Amino acid sequence: VVRNVTAEELKGFVEQIYTRLGVRPDEAQLEADLLVTADLRGVESHGVGSLPFRLSYVRGGLVNLAAKITKVQETPASVLLDADNGFGSAAGNSAMQICIEKAKGIGVSIAAVRRSSHYGIAAYYAMQALRHDMIGVSLTNSTPLVVPTFGREAMLGTNPICLAAPAGREYPFVLDMATSVVAAGKVSKYGRMGKAIPPGWAINRQTEDMTDPSAVTSMLYSFTGGGLLPLGGMGEEFGGHKGFGLSLMVDILTGVLSGSAYGPFPYRTRNGKTGPGNVGHFFAAISVEAFRPLDEFKMAMDELIDLLKESPRVKGQSRIYIHGEKEFECEKRRMKEGIPLDEEVASALETIGKELEVPFPS
Amino acid sequence: VVRNVTAEELKGFVEQIYTRLGVRPDEAQLEADLLVTADLRGVESHGVGSLPFRLSYVRGGLVNLAAKITKVQETPASVLLDADNGFGSAAGNSAMQICIEKAKGIGVSIAAVRRSSHYGIAAYYAMQALRHDMIGVSLTNSTPLVVPTFGREAMLGTNPICLAAPAGREYPFVLDMATSVVAAGKVSKYGRMGKAIPPGWAINRQTEDMTDPSAVTSMLYSFTGGGLLPLGGMGEEFGGHKGFGLSLMVDILTGVLSGSAYGPFPYRTRNGKTGPGNVGHFFAAISVEAFRPLDEFKMAMDELIDLLKESPRVKGQSRIYIHGEKEFECEKRRMKEGIPLDEEVASALETIGKELEVPFPS
Repeated sequence: VVRNVTAEELKGFVEQIYTRLGVRPDEAQLEADLLVTADLRGVESHGVGSLPFRLSYVRGGLVNLAAKITKVQETPASVLLDADNGFGSAAGNSAMQICIEKAKGIGVSIAAVRRSSHYGIAAYYAMQALRHDMIGVSLTNSTPLVVPTFGREAMLGTNPICLAAPAGREYPFVLDMATSVVAAGKVSKYGRMGKAIPPGWAINRQTEDMTDPSAVTSMLYSFTGGGLLPLGGMGEEFGGHKGFGLSLMVDILTGVLSGSAYGPFPYRTRNGKTGPGNVGHFFAAISVEAFRPLDEFKMAMDELIDLLKESPRVKGQSRIYIHGEKEFECEKRRMKEGIPLDEEVASALETIGKELEVPFPS
Repeated sequence: VVRNVTAEELKGFVEQIYTRLGVRPDEAQLEADLLVTADLRGVESHGVGSLPFRLSYVRGGLVNLAAKITKVQETPASVLLDADNGFGSAAGNSAMQICIEKAKGIGVSIAAVRRSSHYGIAAYYAMQALRHDMIGVSLTNSTPLVVPTFGREAMLGTNPICLAAPAGREYPFVLDMATSVVAAGKVSKYGRMGKAIPPGWAINRQTEDMTDPSAVTSMLYSFTGGGLLPLGGMGEEFGGHKGFGLSLMVDILTGVLSGSAYGPFPYRTRNGKTGPGNVGHFFAAISVEAFRPLDEFKMAMDELIDLLKESPRVKGQSRIYIHGEKEFECEKRRMKEGIPLDEEVASALETIGKELEVPFPS
């Protein structure tokens, strides 16, 4: 069973829920937009389905509702923000806006953010650059779920890499990828579908392949060893050390550069308890026009995308997808037809709504 | 059989070879340093073993020996260089130097380069930032050898991602990775060792896995379909679309942003012939001190590296490696003991030396 809700209704609901919990209206609105944008794009793992989990952080005091975002250090091309353990969405949004403003004047700019929280989908921030015909970059570290190459304990997050670049006729290129072989959300999704996961996604602390998705999920959040494998898988033969390297690269740019937690410490205290996120982010904006005329850039993007899409396909495949394409198509469809919610997600939201006296749209 | 040559002897030899072919002394010196640095670091695929191949480009007129590197566009935080189809090493070196100078003043800086040539190991440029306690980034596109996800024709290069970040006691972090499951050089290496390559590295144009390394190498350079698989392998199950996305991201930042060739066109003309590289590069320098005090950053890097290296290992593995570590250890050893050259490489160099009347060190 699936319930269909419009994006506007869903945003209104989420916003009210946050407001009832004492979240400031502007921040409630931003969180709502972040989650519903993920659902529109078909990234359900980071959509309203993650609201119960996000609220548990708010209620558990892991997010500072009175946070004041401050500029710690600044140059005409860079800024470091301190998010005061507030919402990742508020901090990410501020940082990206500053990046874009700076890049308007000087061509390129970087923002680092420290002491932040889970910021949802990385693309939410990088894509803001598209409206200004800029390339946007968004990176974050996160809860430790990924083992290093030759290791068997989760020491790094699924630390995503996101880059958005404008095109002309074609959809923009929007890469938004966990640097692990799969994100944690994909494992849960297999669980909900009652499907086994393939060997090569996760190992337990005895270094054995795991195929039961719910066993993987409970292992990941018990922090007792084992974890997701980096992109490229186990060992070095298929480039697992590359995925490990990408994850570590993201951790350096987000956690180390900003002065946030890194390695196994986001959302974890030094003695192994759950604590405030102290998450680090990294953003960049690159003005296309600092390098070449915008129309030339967009024409080249279109040609490159077309060349790839029209190139010969492997047997049984009817289409080559460019990154972001599936999500843009999904968004178009869901803006028109509404967002389909699993009964499980819908009833969880309904329960939260009842508790806080916010009617769930029906 | 292996011949041992010192780095200095080898540099002198390569420099003279280039000079005999009419290359300017400064550019000959830079190419020699680039190749020998790769050999010192144990990256033989990009070392002096690649000299015959690089010289064929020089002799074939694919590299402009009279190239003048020019600034096309500039802001205090960005620059676009035109390399005039000259050496990638000369262009990359200039671009990285400009980046570092700009980042000294303003914290961060990006350089794009168009109309360049194969620039050797990406790390050669990114690591220059380390001497200035900066983070360095180096990306390039390259000859099309990699198939897109669900495609069976090489449409993108092995487009490497390189990031170098300073540490304190520990070696710097130096990630330098092809975005394909393996670089082309690794396939050739298996060939020289007489070993089959595992299924999952390369497919032919019938979408079949290939295991014969010499068949792969000749397929790759005949440009008649098939190619290396992106990091994550075939299809989407193990994240092959992520490797494809990373390769495309690099192509956008290097080829499209700079106004160079992209997709299947570096070193290839529009009608499928071999042509000048028209390669694009992208560099960035990030001053650590624009974000936090250098000693704090280095202490955090050391702690992160130590945590990873000391974390529990999978059965049968004695060590967790940080990216760059193997190469720094190799360099240390080879600076002391000399660079061991395969008999095959040594005799190829000797032949070139005889032809151009440059004695090969013995």
